[in-house]
Amino acid sequence: MIDFSIPADLVAERDRVRRFVTDRVIPFERDPRLTAHGPTDELRRDLVELARAEDLLTIQAPKEFGGRGLTHLEQAVLYEAAGWSTLGPVAMNCAAPDEGNMFLLGKIADPEQAERYLRPMLDGHQRSVFAMTEPCGAGSDPAQLNTEARFDGANFTVNGRKWLITGAKGAKTWIIMARLAPSPELAAAGLEPGPTLFLTDGDQPGIVIERTMNTMDRNYVAGHGVVRFDDLVLPRSALLGETGKALRYAQLRLAPARLTHCMRWLGAAERAQHIAIEHARTRTAFGKPIGEHEGVSFLLADNEIALHQCRLTIWHACWLMDRGEQARHESSMAKSFVSEELFKVADRCVQVLGGIGISDETVVEMIFRDMRAFRLYDGPTEVHKYAIGRKILRDN
Amino acid sequence: MIDFSIPADLVAERDRVRRFVTDRVIPFERDPRLTAHGPTDELRRDLVELARAEDLLTIQAPKEFGGRGLTHLEQAVLYEAAGWSTLGPVAMNCAAPDEGNMFLLGKIADPEQAERYLRPMLDGHQRSVFAMTEPCGAGSDPAQLNTEARFDGANFTVNGRKWLITGAKGAKTWIIMARLAPSPELAAAGLEPGPTLFLTDGDQPGIVIERTMNTMDRNYVAGHGVVRFDDLVLPRSALLGETGKALRYAQLRLAPARLTHCMRWLGAAERAQHIAIEHARTRTAFGKPIGEHEGVSFLLADNEIALHQCRLTIWHACWLMDRGEQARHESSMAKSFVSEELFKVADRCVQVLGGIGISDETVVEMIFRDMRAFRLYDGPTEVHKYAIGRKILRDN
Amino acid sequence: MIDFSIPADLVAERDRVRRFVTDRVIPFERDPRLTAHGPTDELRRDLVELARAEDLLTIQAPKEFGGRGLTHLEQAVLYEAAGWSTLGPVAMNCAAPDEGNMFLLGKIADPEQAERYLRPMLDGHQRSVFAMTEPCGAGSDPAQLNTEARFDGANFTVNGRKWLITGAKGAKTWIIMARLAPSPELAAAGLEPGPTLFLTDGDQPGIVIERTMNTMDRNYVAGHGVVRFDDLVLPRSALLGETGKALRYAQLRLAPARLTHCMRWLGAAERAQHIAIEHARTRTAFGKPIGEHEGVSFLLADNEIALHQCRLTIWHACWLMDRGEQARHESSMAKSFVSEELFKVADRCVQVLGGIGISDETVVEMIFRDMRAFRLYDGPTEVHKYAIGRKILRDN
Amino acid sequence: MIDFSIPADLVAERDRVRRFVTDRVIPFERDPRLTAHGPTDELRRDLVELARAEDLLTIQAPKEFGGRGLTHLEQAVLYEAAGWSTLGPVAMNCAAPDEGNMFLLGKIADPEQAERYLRPMLDGHQRSVFAMTEPCGAGSDPAQLNTEARFDGANFTVNGRKWLITGAKGAKTWIIMARLAPSPELAAAGLEPGPTLFLTDGDQPGIVIERTMNTMDRNYVAGHGVVRFDDLVLPRSALLGETGKALRYAQLRLAPARLTHCMRWLGAAERAQHIAIEHARTRTAFGKPIGEHEGVSFLLADNEIALHQCRLTIWHACWLMDRGEQARHESSMAKSFVSEELFKVADRCVQVLGGIGISDETVVEMIFRDMRAFRLYDGPTEVHKYAIGRKILRDN
Repeated sequence: MIDFSIPADLVAERDRVRRFVTDRVIPFERDPRLTAHGPTDELRRDLVELARAEDLLTIQAPKEFGGRGLTHLEQAVLYEAAGWSTLGPVAMNCAAPDEGNMFLLGKIADPEQAERYLRPMLDGHQRSVFAMTEPCGAGSDPAQLNTEARFDGANFTVNGRKWLITGAKGAKTWIIMARLAPSPELAAAGLEPGPTLFLTDGDQPGIVIERTMNTMDRNYVAGHGVVRFDDLVLPRSALLGETGKALRYAQLRLAPARLTHCMRWLGAAERAQHIAIEHARTRTAFGKPIGEHEGVSFLLADNEIALHQCRLTIWHACWLMDRGEQARHESSMAKSFVSEELFKVADRCVQVLGGIGISDETVVEMIFRDMRAFRLYDGPTEVHKYAIGRKILRDN
Repeated sequence: MIDFSIPADLVAERDRVRRFVTDRVIPFERDPRLTAHGPTDELRRDLVELARAEDLLTIQAPKEFGGRGLTHLEQAVLYEAAGWSTLGPVAMNCAAPDEGNMFLLGKIADPEQAERYLRPMLDGHQRSVFAMTEPCGAGSDPAQLNTEARFDGANFTVNGRKWLITGAKGAKTWIIMARLAPSPELAAAGLEPGPTLFLTDGDQPGIVIERTMNTMDRNYVAGHGVVRFDDLVLPRSALLGETGKALRYAQLRLAPARLTHCMRWLGAAERAQHIAIEHARTRTAFGKPIGEHEGVSFLLADNEIALHQCRLTIWHACWLMDRGEQARHESSMAKSFVSEELFKVADRCVQVLGGIGISDETVVEMIFRDMRAFRLYDGPTEVHKYAIGRKILRDN
Repeated sequence: MIDFSIPADLVAERDRVRRFVTDRVIPFERDPRLTAHGPTDELRRDLVELARAEDLLTIQAPKEFGGRGLTHLEQAVLYEAAGWSTLGPVAMNCAAPDEGNMFLLGKIADPEQAERYLRPMLDGHQRSVFAMTEPCGAGSDPAQLNTEARFDGANFTVNGRKWLITGAKGAKTWIIMARLAPSPELAAAGLEPGPTLFLTDGDQPGIVIERTMNTMDRNYVAGHGVVRFDDLVLPRSALLGETGKALRYAQLRLAPARLTHCMRWLGAAERAQHIAIEHARTRTAFGKPIGEHEGVSFLLADNEIALHQCRLTIWHACWLMDRGEQARHESSMAKSFVSEELFKVADRCVQVLGGIGISDETVVEMIFRDMRAFRLYDGPTEVHKYAIGRKILRDN
Repeated sequence: MIDFSIPADLVAERDRVRRFVTDRVIPFERDPRLTAHGPTDELRRDLVELARAEDLLTIQAPKEFGGRGLTHLEQAVLYEAAGWSTLGPVAMNCAAPDEGNMFLLGKIADPEQAERYLRPMLDGHQRSVFAMTEPCGAGSDPAQLNTEARFDGANFTVNGRKWLITGAKGAKTWIIMARLAPSPELAAAGLEPGPTLFLTDGDQPGIVIERTMNTMDRNYVAGHGVVRFDDLVLPRSALLGETGKALRYAQLRLAPARLTHCMRWLGAAERAQHIAIEHARTRTAFGKPIGEHEGVSFLLADNEIALHQCRLTIWHACWLMDRGEQARHESSMAKSFVSEELFKVADRCVQVLGGIGISDETVVEMIFRDMRAFRLYDGPTEVHKYAIGRKILRDN
């Protein structure tokens, strides 16, 4: 039956995560290594060691890899707590894109790949990228994939250009999406052409990181890179999963990855609300605390309602996935609702803070900017509404 | 643990309710006895007999009165199904204000009162009113209660004027809120002065129904009346609960009553969405079904998300109440969110329907108007936000 | 140079209109002849005589027909004043659809048609309809016109079905849009086939008014009818303008007609705001006038801003049309902005009024419902945005 | 009579400004001297010389100082064109806070002050600050002014702390608001106590710039500083205007300064829209240019309407001020409307651009951030609504 209770041990762990973030992670929010391009790898390493020391590192890892094999619902509860600082998920190794990449590798990497690439990621020693988006698309509409791989019978040669590749600079593990061109050699090898994933090392001559883009958000380690694949030669063992199935794998990764984004940002928005409430209680204007002005308290009330609604919809989609459903429709609804609402929450917090709100005197300003970007990550709201609308008309 | 599953038997009962509404109730939506002042008593009686025949009458009644003693969550599931037609809850005797009045009487009526007033209501034979709102307030701000009761040692004499009294005309059972004036006789009787509830019969000379107001909504039997208490003499046995505690009792009634409103309207909004989708699929413009225009399908997608969110927040507040919590804050958040969102849903459905949407060719027009009123019933959204805002600032 | 001043004589006339509406027209708002299907013809006649007595009847009429030949800007100023009561434009004979029909006839009727049909309309003796919209479209997308006219060499025979035909019941003058079928006789007569307008009398057997629809709005005389053309035989002299050009004529009528809608509704929304302000000043809650709660005063402030913005955009589009431009884009922007904003104004007024707002204790409830319909008249907002979006992408 | 025409010579000058910005200024948008704290002084000097060479420097200056003495309406037309690049107003020396400061000095500086401070500013050689806002308020609620000036009979000594002081670092000319303490010496000198303005040089020991704040916006030269007045000693000649009247002077400055903000940002938002349209026309998704998806074109249509409405309300308030009215209410309405709407415009442009929108690949990202801050500059929207609401209730 419908139930919203959280078991006592999960509550206890949530509180422990929250204390960890509050006591150990938040002090790093003023660390200069939290740059305009996000945390540096060095800052990340320091944070990861903090989490390791508290046994809070990569807790979502499958049990066979030494993790706790968290359900999606358990993740929802704990990631929300971790997100109280945008550095929390970095410390606990459950930040994007690594979290989604580890999930995907856990599903489709072969044992050798898992040992070589997944394990060091789970251990917090490596970062990874998921190289899909291209300057002319291939994000919302993956059909526009221009990066091409050619098979010569022995190796693949990849050429193309990607951008908005999160964490590109410094990442050791690369998942690359390319369009595998049909050819006699491919047919002879019994391989399907089409969008295909490859798994390889970042540190090789064919992967050229042209630059790191200057973006509004600051929460990803190493920011977002522009990458060129320049005759990148990959052996057959670099194939991740079956050829021609990259879009299906991307979907497999996306539904839960969207939701973990929602969980972490929910925590961040709660932090913003917490700061705004504190400000509203202590700052006075026109003779009383500004929080006693309905013009302010209604903003906070709207936030309260929005945060509550976001939590519920995340939980619901997680529950579906824990039952084994793909929940594509529900995760799409959740992602579009949550990203739009949390942006409004952050925006209202900025407004409550007034001049302080647009400065880095508090983390609200950074959260606001991250939230703006969130409405575009993993498919802009419009693409989700497009899909939701089509489904409604098809199914009803 | 968090869970969104509905047990199979409840699903079955929900589907039975839905079929009952679809097959038996909806045909009455075109009955001329559904007037501008809502369904007539005669129409109500016919509908009630339909539900009785299917064993769907007053299913929420306490077990000691022969009902099923539904939990709040069970009500949420079944009332949503009942609300598919605004006549559904009338038929099943779970419409406002009777549903809330029965709930309240079940909590505070003494055995004699329960036998005399509650039982006939549960049996669907009587309608009731909750006479609280007054022309100068006493709705959102009950402190402005002007109707006065004076105690002469034996009887109470009530004088005052009320309006927006739902279902006044023809109601047999009256719950009346009046301010009990302090007096020596009152003190001698050991009674507290202050806001007090009385329970009595509607058919007596001191209760004058001046007129029925013309309102935008059409879903309440007998509409909303203007009432005058003209030296209404009531015996001591007419006291409902303890004197001076009317506001507390009103709150006791309101938290669940707000939620049952949400449940029923959720069903109605789903009906509107269903009709809008059907229209979007079949009506064409500019060379394709209008549902293939994003300008339309995005409206439907927004509705889909809103309906989902409303359901979740209703369930959550119900779950709290089923655990014995008063859930005043959560029911306030749910009521303000749900009423605002469902209004938007209905508004978008009108827009999708175009010219048809503003006519009674479909029930969407009626639902739209009812939803507008819903944002004001049980406290306008602003009063809820006021309360939510105050709580946030107090508690955080 | 940019200027927002209104000449003194126009100000004086505006104030005279406003006094006329306040003193003479508003008392009729409680007249039972203002029915759910709008004012009756009898009420209209009484109102028209009031305006005639004050020399305020059909003041927009071309000078050659004895009117003042008002510019669009002058109309903007005076219709806004007239709209203070929704009955004001009825009295002054500048309400829809007559106002737009008179405009169109002034442009394209031949002298004989003008004398026979236009003059009695200008004199306030006749009402008219513009029979375009059909159950399957032909409103927003006139390409879906199914009503057909066939030419036999002497007469036209019209068959088809229309709905949402405003003022159908009792209208003497009919403008009918039908698709003129190609035929040898048509070609022989040198006439183009395609959408064509006809001008004829309402009182003839081929025009069957099936019923009057029940709609949300109440501001049109005789409401909206469903009409069947049943072998309606029309002589060649019934052709209005050239054959095949009906869509162009409809556009010619629409751009100004949209704007006069905006002008009149602007006045109505100001009335609603006036009533809401009065309520906010006098009604108290939680210890002070509700207008001193920011939760209320912000709603009124939003209204103030919206009304101001609506007035400015109406004036701008009028100015363009007075310069001889068609202003299709600007009138489209104005109509969509004004209808959406004025609806919000009316909605906020309802909210400020609380329970009163959903009753006919004030005219706000009626204005709210009319405004809802306004968002669909003359093209729903989405159709305007579609056109605006296309233009932007084409022109920039 | 109402008129929206712009004289041909003003159109020509507007086009000249636009060309200047497009051809000469925009190339500097990629200049590294446009830092996170806004343009450096060095960049500003280069830009100013460009404008000087084209006779476009400080064109608003009073005629007695060699300027053109632009009316507010003329400013509206030209500043909108200048704002096409956020560097345009910097080049033309009509950016905040200098523009407002020059305006104020033109009104209340004595001849000696004008010669010493105003003239070098008009010549583009000096920048200025208006030091009002304090950490605990004194922005929206100037009553909370804590910086204090004491008069010893000869000099004033100022102590206090300010923040969000735009352009503090490097500004030569300082207008400082302080609360003048009552004292016998003050009374003896015949001076009123209370909020008072002082005019002095930035380069003196008593003015300590503690740091430059990191803020979301990037359009002000030298960003926003935190400033301490540490026994700042000022002679009597440093008094700007009369003592005790600082709040009145601040209002005198604010009404037009708010509007010039609106003008410049309107130009910037148009730029963003221009970039978004270009993107919508060229980028494809799901088989067609994204601009042919209504999900995108409706965003652009909303922008088009919003930009139009903003322009109209700016013009209207300017027209009032050109007639000699203070237009406090109308400039308040304009500022709150324009800042909220232009933010939405920028936000929608970001959304249309997708991933590019959150990066500095285009200036849209910078404009978005500037617009967010704009909703807080010169009084947050809520403070304006508070004032508008009070006025409505007082006047109606």
